[in-house]
Amino acid sequence: MRIEIALYDGFDELDGIAPYEALRTAGWDVHLVGAHGPGELRAAHGAQLVVDEGLGDPGVVIVPGGGWGERAQRGAWGEAQRGELPRRLAALAPRLRFAASVCTGAMLLAAAGLTRGRPATTHANAKEDLRRSGAEVIDGARVVDDGDLLTAGGVTAGLDLALWLVEREDGEDAAAGVAAELEHERRGTVWRRDATRAPARPLP
Amino acid sequence: MRIEIALYDGFDELDGIAPYEALRTAGWDVHLVGAHGPGELRAAHGAQLVVDEGLGDPGVVIVPGGGWGERAQRGAWGEAQRGELPRRLAALAPRLRFAASVCTGAMLLAAAGLTRGRPATTHANAKEDLRRSGAEVIDGARVVDDGDLLTAGGVTAGLDLALWLVEREDGEDAAAGVAAELEHERRGTVWRRDATRAPARPLP
Repeated sequence: MRIEIALYDGFDELDGIAPYEALRTAGWDVHLVGAHGPGELRAAHGAQLVVDEGLGDPGVVIVPGGGWGERAQRGAWGEAQRGELPRRLAALAPRLRFAASVCTGAMLLAAAGLTRGRPATTHANAKEDLRRSGAEVIDGARVVDDGDLLTAGGVTAGLDLALWLVEREDGEDAAAGVAAELEHERRGTVWRRDATRAPARPLP
Repeated sequence: MRIEIALYDGFDELDGIAPYEALRTAGWDVHLVGAHGPGELRAAHGAQLVVDEGLGDPGVVIVPGGGWGERAQRGAWGEAQRGELPRRLAALAPRLRFAASVCTGAMLLAAAGLTRGRPATTHANAKEDLRRSGAEVIDGARVVDDGDLLTAGGVTAGLDLALWLVEREDGEDAAAGVAAELEHERRGTVWRRDATRAPARPLP
């Protein structure tokens, strides 16, 4: 299962790199890619990254946030306004095993129409925007797992998203091993749809 | 106070980038620099970064770890073996306000002779090596603050190092603000020398 983390100018460094490192540590096939093709990117706080590949046709896409609170043109806000990345995510969605976001990356999934009527979360500073997009914002959850749509809270919640994915796919022992290697104590609540109540809805 | 985070091939991504983002969020003058000059670097898990500047003459240097457990040539182990970065750190030390490390970056401070007889910590997988280098390893501490020498535990402990620095220099409210922005709940114990017992020793 190939996972691509879709980076763009102004992405928040830890939103992208924390799940990358955690999933790499788990031995997963995860790649940092350019949402708009290969090249050099400058992240929200100034780190410069080089990505050799652009967003392709992965099994899973993870979308970081960045700059939403400041309505930054370089960042998730600008990406949502311009629309190219959301359109790409919408086109990919039917073929994905799941889509995931960290922080205000959820607003790019929202712009792609993937969160409407779905339980989700985002950084505290964007929860009202996510709610207005038609998502059911789950207050108090650090990670929301709706089957084929996973969203995490702000910045460092990406670690807990990744560790939850490792637990879900590889089991608790695997997740505990990664957490130990990262010396990260897992935090917060993972919200999951009650399987006896309703199945996770497929992506549109 | 200019802070340089000294990156090298094989550095652990989060060791370097987590304190960078946290201190940037605090408004600090912090820079990712190349320990061996400007250029392109490949971090331990595969992320490629570009740094425009090499390690200069900062007020503070922060050293990440990476690859120590695997005795990787590309990483902290190889850097300690080759000795150029430790020599540079030793030469800088007398002019620094403080030196800090995340994870096995402590082993590069050790190779520079900066931890001998000093309380310190590192990633769990390197504590024995750090002890053998003559440091007093403080078990149970996530961050060890010995005044002008600060060391943190593995990987994500760099967040708590950075937040401790913000608290120490800018106060608790500032640290709480950064933690809230990062949606990080601070963890673990910060060990500080008891000021009534003995002063922190100066760097050599």
